[in-house]
Amino acid sequence: MEARLVAEMERWPIVDPHSHIDAHSPAACTWDEIVSYHYYTELAHSAGQPAADLSPEMPRTERLRRLADRLPDLDNTVQHSWLSAIAREFYGFEGRLDASSLEELVHRADHRRDAPSWHEAVWAQSNLQAVFLTNDFDDPLEGFDTTRFIPCLRTDDLVFRLHEPRTVERLSQASQIEVDDLTSLRLAIGSRFAHFVSRGARACAISLPPGFRPVPAAPRRAATSVRRALCGLPLRDDEHLEVQSTVFWFLAEFCAEFGLPFDLMIGVHRNVYPDGVDGGRDLLDRRVSLHDYAGLFRAFPGVTFPISMLAADASAELVAYAWIFPNVVPMGHWWYANLPAWIEPDLRARLQAIPKGKLIGYYSDAYKLEFIRPKFAMYRACLARVLADDLIRRRGATEHDALALARLLLIDNPRRVFRLDKGPPVQPQIADSSDQSAK
Amino acid sequence: MEARLVAEMERWPIVDPHSHIDAHSPAACTWDEIVSYHYYTELAHSAGQPAADLSPEMPRTERLRRLADRLPDLDNTVQHSWLSAIAREFYGFEGRLDASSLEELVHRADHRRDAPSWHEAVWAQSNLQAVFLTNDFDDPLEGFDTTRFIPCLRTDDLVFRLHEPRTVERLSQASQIEVDDLTSLRLAIGSRFAHFVSRGARACAISLPPGFRPVPAAPRRAATSVRRALCGLPLRDDEHLEVQSTVFWFLAEFCAEFGLPFDLMIGVHRNVYPDGVDGGRDLLDRRVSLHDYAGLFRAFPGVTFPISMLAADASAELVAYAWIFPNVVPMGHWWYANLPAWIEPDLRARLQAIPKGKLIGYYSDAYKLEFIRPKFAMYRACLARVLADDLIRRRGATEHDALALARLLLIDNPRRVFRLDKGPPVQPQIADSSDQSAK
Amino acid sequence: MEARLVAEMERWPIVDPHSHIDAHSPAACTWDEIVSYHYYTELAHSAGQPAADLSPEMPRTERLRRLADRLPDLDNTVQHSWLSAIAREFYGFEGRLDASSLEELVHRADHRRDAPSWHEAVWAQSNLQAVFLTNDFDDPLEGFDTTRFIPCLRTDDLVFRLHEPRTVERLSQASQIEVDDLTSLRLAIGSRFAHFVSRGARACAISLPPGFRPVPAAPRRAATSVRRALCGLPLRDDEHLEVQSTVFWFLAEFCAEFGLPFDLMIGVHRNVYPDGVDGGRDLLDRRVSLHDYAGLFRAFPGVTFPISMLAADASAELVAYAWIFPNVVPMGHWWYANLPAWIEPDLRARLQAIPKGKLIGYYSDAYKLEFIRPKFAMYRACLARVLADDLIRRRGATEHDALALARLLLIDNPRRVFRLDKGPPVQPQIADSSDQSAK
Repeated sequence: MEARLVAEMERWPIVDPHSHIDAHSPAACTWDEIVSYHYYTELAHSAGQPAADLSPEMPRTERLRRLADRLPDLDNTVQHSWLSAIAREFYGFEGRLDASSLEELVHRADHRRDAPSWHEAVWAQSNLQAVFLTNDFDDPLEGFDTTRFIPCLRTDDLVFRLHEPRTVERLSQASQIEVDDLTSLRLAIGSRFAHFVSRGARACAISLPPGFRPVPAAPRRAATSVRRALCGLPLRDDEHLEVQSTVFWFLAEFCAEFGLPFDLMIGVHRNVYPDGVDGGRDLLDRRVSLHDYAGLFRAFPGVTFPISMLAADASAELVAYAWIFPNVVPMGHWWYANLPAWIEPDLRARLQAIPKGKLIGYYSDAYKLEFIRPKFAMYRACLARVLADDLIRRRGATEHDALALARLLLIDNPRRVFRLDKGPPVQPQIADSSDQSAK
Repeated sequence: MEARLVAEMERWPIVDPHSHIDAHSPAACTWDEIVSYHYYTELAHSAGQPAADLSPEMPRTERLRRLADRLPDLDNTVQHSWLSAIAREFYGFEGRLDASSLEELVHRADHRRDAPSWHEAVWAQSNLQAVFLTNDFDDPLEGFDTTRFIPCLRTDDLVFRLHEPRTVERLSQASQIEVDDLTSLRLAIGSRFAHFVSRGARACAISLPPGFRPVPAAPRRAATSVRRALCGLPLRDDEHLEVQSTVFWFLAEFCAEFGLPFDLMIGVHRNVYPDGVDGGRDLLDRRVSLHDYAGLFRAFPGVTFPISMLAADASAELVAYAWIFPNVVPMGHWWYANLPAWIEPDLRARLQAIPKGKLIGYYSDAYKLEFIRPKFAMYRACLARVLADDLIRRRGATEHDALALARLLLIDNPRRVFRLDKGPPVQPQIADSSDQSAK
Repeated sequence: MEARLVAEMERWPIVDPHSHIDAHSPAACTWDEIVSYHYYTELAHSAGQPAADLSPEMPRTERLRRLADRLPDLDNTVQHSWLSAIAREFYGFEGRLDASSLEELVHRADHRRDAPSWHEAVWAQSNLQAVFLTNDFDDPLEGFDTTRFIPCLRTDDLVFRLHEPRTVERLSQASQIEVDDLTSLRLAIGSRFAHFVSRGARACAISLPPGFRPVPAAPRRAATSVRRALCGLPLRDDEHLEVQSTVFWFLAEFCAEFGLPFDLMIGVHRNVYPDGVDGGRDLLDRRVSLHDYAGLFRAFPGVTFPISMLAADASAELVAYAWIFPNVVPMGHWWYANLPAWIEPDLRARLQAIPKGKLIGYYSDAYKLEFIRPKFAMYRACLARVLADDLIRRRGATEHDALALARLLLIDNPRRVFRLDKGPPVQPQIADSSDQSAK
């Protein structure tokens, strides 16, 4: 029965509400672009390969060989199963992934000469319909089809790196506003929202550390800290927090004004392991609670908050918050929580307690298109098992009912929550007062 | 095999050790009383229905219609499955729950004219044997059969609202003691214990917020804070905590004196979402540990503490505490943790590590009798699966053994822990010294 | 299929990387030594038996009878299943464990007169290959075969009881160094490492309370606190912490110098229930995070840290840390987390996300050899189910592949991580400067 459910789901187009795809170069044109995904370098390093061997400074041939040597050590992992699936489905390679097959894979995966048609081929073979991007706030969002590649305003830099001169420069340049105080900062951020929305953006997103606590902006009080940050002056810890809170609250206010969902990815500590490989240095502290976010959810009833928790053990809490707050929506299964072992119980609970129209099943988090298909396949297999066990065998639903529910999670809900079928929302006027507060 | 286990369990009478049933009006006499259970209003609101549409101020017909419109959006949830079961089993209605069926359900569920016999009919059809109530401390406990409806002294108001003049008035009035200092407070509370026990009460219960930490009463030190609270004077945060700790410790002392189990329902934050519907405003902070309660368990070895944790992820800790402390007893699966997705692993662990005589399987938490049967049916299905998998298939037990174990969890243990077969315990003399401390 | 996998695994020798076996008396020579394992006394106490009845002061016959009376109350637990397995497999007793069978069990289990050959017989019947011990720092490690019984330096006393005069005396005596300041303390500890390594020790181990946070040693600053501790002078709380941190960091430094893995058993609160039975007084606080240990993992990249978490709900975090840090290795399933209900999801996640060469499947934690076999049998059954479900049924692996993976977890990884095939590592010179810091 699971196999029939999966077979049907495989026929559906994929809507992927969060990825790190580069719209200008969405598919991989080399094996290097596939196998250098941080999952493989970090697991190879975890298995004993020195980080230096896997770093961009290492000559490519040697780097790929050392990585290939390690792949058999990872062949138990789900991450390795995505890689095998890519080799099989996109490159027609059925063999074992190791040093002996490296040359052949490099050859088969080489699409440097037919890149444009390869991008199309991967898109078509994966049956993709819409893929959300992760765009820096100063991204011009030009030169790609924004009905396929949906812009998403990623705001980590604005909240957590505002004290770095480079951030302020980028913001001033992108907004054409000289950012030197709280008022100009708010105007500049608002102008980026306007730009993003005008280019079809459908979400604002941010990742947040475990200790972060949203508190309402108190612009008058924060004015000094913000000015110091914008001037690159040194800040005390409490001033850093004040700047972060203030900017974060502005973002929520703009999400309300511009009708954008605000994706919160909660619980990541950056650079916990600085000697790790690129992309393999961040971890978590599991002592996190959505109770810290309740004030935010209350303050912005008109903003939808799709939530991902990095700590898999926090999933029961997310179910409760999404069950009570109309604007809290559980979204996919993020990073360290993206294992069938954690997805399945979490998904069972979501399906048992949250109104079905609120469930955003999955996103790929991928950097290259090729990964979307195998990651969604992993999720669909989990979903099929949960539906077969819980809905069909235990509650007597039909396969048809189960598939209708699956379709909501995979297609209809992300389309509706992120307004994919509609044109850009009417553009609101950017509030020019920094005192404006949320309802 | 699961089906056989369930079929046998269905033949057993139900002992329900925690509910919010009103003994004077136990069954629902209208569809409104069924469908207005907070699960349906809160999920309808979560799914997008404005809270105002679901509030008691909205005219009934319109309110019921708007709620009915939303029910299909919840049909994936276990809460919806309880509602369907009620419609089917009590009203003989097999159709879909939506606006089109509302009129028929309102008609079928109307028992306003035959209420007394309907209460009996639901009791009989549900095969109920004893249902615990949740009684305010000033409840006269008169006018109902206390061998069916077991009084339980609910004490949240005494601990957390003692600073509200209304609480003191109610306590003075109920106890006929002028409550104006710590000594009179203790006497008055003791007199309510005496009243409850004389009327067949079998438990004291309280729900506690995540940050609560029981500490031994220090009456001399707390005398001033308590007096200020009783006079309605403003209290500092530390004084509030001192009052709460002091009263809570008194309650544990009286549970020891009167031989009552003290049900602790740990981890609820009240009114996290004030704009929600009635009964749908409370949530949790998962950062809670039973280590905060160890001193309480040590101080009152003669008091049994049936424990419910609101955070499903805290279940492993409860298993460990119930495994070590003779007086800690895991009780049912509470509220946000009351989903098969969380019940099943939790139940497996309890059965694998806690002496079988200590397991109190389930309680309904219901407000109307009709919900007891479908909620227990959900639990029995979980129990049957766990017994079939773990006990029969893996450990080679017989179905007979498995059913004997199930009977302990469902019937014998709650009867023994709450002394249902015995008369009221010998009434101790109420200690008149507020300095009396626990052994 | 699970049965075939289990049958094959049963043929393999057991490598047990953590136990409390006494190498001088490894098997039990009486039923008392079996049934007095703290699991049975603590569960009997949990089920209602007074602790005094189960204490060593109670006359043996009476104590055994009272314990036997309680065993049927525990027959649902996995701990009871180990006991039944021992009775069946080592004593040929198939009946029920209760007072009626006590005499027969006492008789059958009596090996006081043939102790040496019984130790051999249990070793052979259990197919043991190597069993790690838990040795006090002043253990002479003499009189036993250290290729079978692998010494492990247990260091709780050095870190958490250095302020007790007895600890300092023992250390001075064992090291023949007068320990009276930080420098002599470091030398003395180093000499114990040298002794242990010379006698074949393959690990250093410690159990840590939930609030412990490793911080780099600051010997100059800590010199005074350490001297006060060594002289038995009273310490403030912050001085206790400074002493603990300093000694802990020394241990990590010596693990680096001597090439020993450092087993961390994280999360135990000692003596939470002082009125409990021997060995049944410790519990946990689940609010613990490996983030507190990240600095340690970074500071000692050359030290392998096999980690056990007492809070089962912390398992997702351990998976993430072992996935990122090359030197973090998940090890077995400890104590309160050692239930199939928690082992199976945890094991699924480990197998899905951690390079297979890093997984140390299981250890017995046993005090007597007889318990190793049934505990490993419980684990192998879990492993077989996870492999059959996840690897064979879902990912299409062969049984041969699944068994190869199982062999890594059960045999090859512990042998390699703990260098069982090699002679003692080259003995480094003990650094004589207490300022030496980690790389």
